[in-house]
Amino acid sequence: MSKVRVIVAGPRGRMGNEAVKLVHRTEGFELAAVIDRKYNGESLSNIDGFQGIEAPVFSDINECFSAVNADVLIDLTTPEVGMYHTETALNHGIRPVVGTTGFTKEDLAKLDSLTREKGIGCIIAPNFAIGAILMMKFSQMAAKYFPNVEIIEMHHDQKLDAPSGTAAKTADMIAAVRETKQQGHPNEKETIQGARGANIDGMHIHSVRLPGLVAHQQVLFGSDGELLTVRHDSFNRASFMTGVKLAVDSVMKLDVLVYGLENIIE
Amino acid sequence: MSKVRVIVAGPRGRMGNEAVKLVHRTEGFELAAVIDRKYNGESLSNIDGFQGIEAPVFSDINECFSAVNADVLIDLTTPEVGMYHTETALNHGIRPVVGTTGFTKEDLAKLDSLTREKGIGCIIAPNFAIGAILMMKFSQMAAKYFPNVEIIEMHHDQKLDAPSGTAAKTADMIAAVRETKQQGHPNEKETIQGARGANIDGMHIHSVRLPGLVAHQQVLFGSDGELLTVRHDSFNRASFMTGVKLAVDSVMKLDVLVYGLENIIE
Amino acid sequence: MSKVRVIVAGPRGRMGNEAVKLVHRTEGFELAAVIDRKYNGESLSNIDGFQGIEAPVFSDINECFSAVNADVLIDLTTPEVGMYHTETALNHGIRPVVGTTGFTKEDLAKLDSLTREKGIGCIIAPNFAIGAILMMKFSQMAAKYFPNVEIIEMHHDQKLDAPSGTAAKTADMIAAVRETKQQGHPNEKETIQGARGANIDGMHIHSVRLPGLVAHQQVLFGSDGELLTVRHDSFNRASFMTGVKLAVDSVMKLDVLVYGLENIIE
Amino acid sequence: MSKVRVIVAGPRGRMGNEAVKLVHRTEGFELAAVIDRKYNGESLSNIDGFQGIEAPVFSDINECFSAVNADVLIDLTTPEVGMYHTETALNHGIRPVVGTTGFTKEDLAKLDSLTREKGIGCIIAPNFAIGAILMMKFSQMAAKYFPNVEIIEMHHDQKLDAPSGTAAKTADMIAAVRETKQQGHPNEKETIQGARGANIDGMHIHSVRLPGLVAHQQVLFGSDGELLTVRHDSFNRASFMTGVKLAVDSVMKLDVLVYGLENIIE
Repeated sequence: MSKVRVIVAGPRGRMGNEAVKLVHRTEGFELAAVIDRKYNGESLSNIDGFQGIEAPVFSDINECFSAVNADVLIDLTTPEVGMYHTETALNHGIRPVVGTTGFTKEDLAKLDSLTREKGIGCIIAPNFAIGAILMMKFSQMAAKYFPNVEIIEMHHDQKLDAPSGTAAKTADMIAAVRETKQQGHPNEKETIQGARGANIDGMHIHSVRLPGLVAHQQVLFGSDGELLTVRHDSFNRASFMTGVKLAVDSVMKLDVLVYGLENIIE
Repeated sequence: MSKVRVIVAGPRGRMGNEAVKLVHRTEGFELAAVIDRKYNGESLSNIDGFQGIEAPVFSDINECFSAVNADVLIDLTTPEVGMYHTETALNHGIRPVVGTTGFTKEDLAKLDSLTREKGIGCIIAPNFAIGAILMMKFSQMAAKYFPNVEIIEMHHDQKLDAPSGTAAKTADMIAAVRETKQQGHPNEKETIQGARGANIDGMHIHSVRLPGLVAHQQVLFGSDGELLTVRHDSFNRASFMTGVKLAVDSVMKLDVLVYGLENIIE
Repeated sequence: MSKVRVIVAGPRGRMGNEAVKLVHRTEGFELAAVIDRKYNGESLSNIDGFQGIEAPVFSDINECFSAVNADVLIDLTTPEVGMYHTETALNHGIRPVVGTTGFTKEDLAKLDSLTREKGIGCIIAPNFAIGAILMMKFSQMAAKYFPNVEIIEMHHDQKLDAPSGTAAKTADMIAAVRETKQQGHPNEKETIQGARGANIDGMHIHSVRLPGLVAHQQVLFGSDGELLTVRHDSFNRASFMTGVKLAVDSVMKLDVLVYGLENIIE
Repeated sequence: MSKVRVIVAGPRGRMGNEAVKLVHRTEGFELAAVIDRKYNGESLSNIDGFQGIEAPVFSDINECFSAVNADVLIDLTTPEVGMYHTETALNHGIRPVVGTTGFTKEDLAKLDSLTREKGIGCIIAPNFAIGAILMMKFSQMAAKYFPNVEIIEMHHDQKLDAPSGTAAKTADMIAAVRETKQQGHPNEKETIQGARGANIDGMHIHSVRLPGLVAHQQVLFGSDGELLTVRHDSFNRASFMTGVKLAVDSVMKLDVLVYGLENIIE
């Protein structure tokens, strides 16, 4: 089987750096080129942090696509650059995998019709953390049978906002499938304010902040005589790469646009 | 909406006792009668443990079905009695929910055709613990993306066999969807025998036994930089009732035989 | 070695019932009698719930002490009765183990001098749950080295007050040994009120309430690159018996009054 | 209060690098110099990885002690060099904090008498992870009251040996205070070999190995109706620094040699 030839745009960002290494070490993938606004014409292996990883560097995407044969573009740049890159890739018959939360509805509609026109796959992923996505998906499934839910999310103490975006999203996904339910005893009373946490649609969410922690969440479902828990611990950024790999594998089989990895997970 | 009228067979067993109370307290359910080989003709409320729960007691199932109008039979007796009860219920147009692991393939085939003939639902459930079933289902789903799995099951120290049946079943369900994978470092070495646990298809299973514990299992999925955990804690038998309730609700909408609650969970 | 002969006062209460069974089944202990305001003159084995446990029942404590030879009185009655029982026992040279939170400072002072006068041990225990006491003691020790602490307590959803008394006591014990410290980022912000929990001396406390839960608490200590957790799960009342047994063993070696089991744990 | 002036030997090792940064950022500490066999005469801030941290570099320890006034030497070199450094420091009236498992009994005896002679403190620490040390200490304390123990240790799947050294040491510390006890049911049976883990003095130890994990251990104590758990998660090497800081603070108050941080923890 021939290898999937991949171009990575934005190799010097933290995600991009990991993505280059992922493509480099994955059997079945081949790093065809990288796109970087600096270092045009150099070899990637000369850039700090990429010793031993050979690939041509291009600053202009059209030049890159003309010079290099590729199947997939992994784009980890900014929304503005990313939109231009995604359209250009589709026009060249190259399948985009884009990590961004920044595309507008109009952007997505435009990409959707371009994808259909070209008949090739395109994945836009606000989140590559498959573990976190599965946690949310399982939580939504469990809530149908266990309507009593509490969420405990735990992060390092440099995090400013509470609750976390993932916790709020999990609660929203659960709220979409269960009837609104004010949990706890109707007469329960906080003797110290805040003890019962934040309240989303009757669910309680608790935000722990401690030095040493990274990013952790558990979703607890209680019912008579039992407790079901789904937990995700993210220790570092490498955890995103399982999702990037899945997206590259999947985009090769798709002929439509998919928004969100939860939609390619069965 | 009219209530679902339920007959419970085997009310004095531990599961049966809980089931009677479940039907009694659930809005939308109504306890029509109980079937018990003793106490024919008495009122349930006179039997020890059922104070305040009114329902007629019958020792003969045909007599019961003639005298009482009902929608569902919950059978929590023995496989032999249960098979006769199930057939009789179907023949009377009453939908059976049967908790048993004891029906043979021939029994199931016979009930399947009887169910089709009558055009009404029938549920045979070897396990009513929805929480445990979800844990297994989620584990199987997660294993597609996270092939590195270990299982820790924890039970009271009066349990004789290790690993538990649930742990072995979970491992089998995972083995069915992932490629065989010998986990851990190829050169890993037990300096004390048994440290790495039991091995099923390359997965490691660890059995903890301590006084105080009841029945607990966690399934851990590790990947670069992250850990996904699915955990179920069963504290007492009441945990089966969520599944009994789901089965009664579901059997009213079915027109076929379903074996195993995992097949009515979406 | 001769057995420790024990009298239990209040055998029909929930704690008392467990205590009778503990004494009955513990090698080295012997049930000498029980004190109960009803059933004077009967044998305990005739009272519901005590089948097979032989011991004389007395309604009057002086009569009991005259008729029966004993080493220890376990008192699980009310504060009023308990105070009278405790003084009477000391005056008869019998060592009291009393489970109560209801004694006043004056009561304790009085018992302290009576204990010294008689030269025998006496234990007053507001809490017999050794596991919970160790959790609090360990938490206090850890806080000296790990000043960043959060507490998550989890109880069934019929509990009315939050946070739990144990959580508040744990926080107080920690506050007694660490400098006040406002944890979390100075600019942290709750986008939904309550997310960061209750605040005691800068520590955050989170109260989870779900059906199925019993009584659980974890104390988390975070520091650069690590997390230390002390957790206690109480599944049922039997957990108090480890403490009752320890108290009986200890009171035999004491010649002073001890208030709180934390003071006999090394 | 004047600052504690600290010299770090071995600044380019992984522990040394962290220690330099610890001293640099800790209020109350001052980095007086570093000892490194290379870079003699340079400023530390010119060495890769130490930008912005000013301190003179010496290759010869005697030269260093002559030129620089200091209170404490943190030595993170090798056992051979470390022994020479430690003796030299003591002879100069500088208090050593040495991270090593490599000193022989003879080494320690020699340092003990030298310490007494000089009347200043000296700390030799095989392990700086205070969190792990507390976990072991708490486990030993708990085992006196809860003799039923199991240990679950979890590490990344590149670890070769199982069980871990920390797990074995924890079991040994517990075995030292409890009577030997063969746990589990006397008739328990492994249907798959290894399920019940490794056995040390009747305790069972389970070793989990998964990618993504770092170094984690939990010690579970079960008793009727309850479970007490002590858990330590080590996410990265920064966790050692709490112990290094504690050792520097403590060595200033000591006038004897202490071996092992467990002996300065109360």
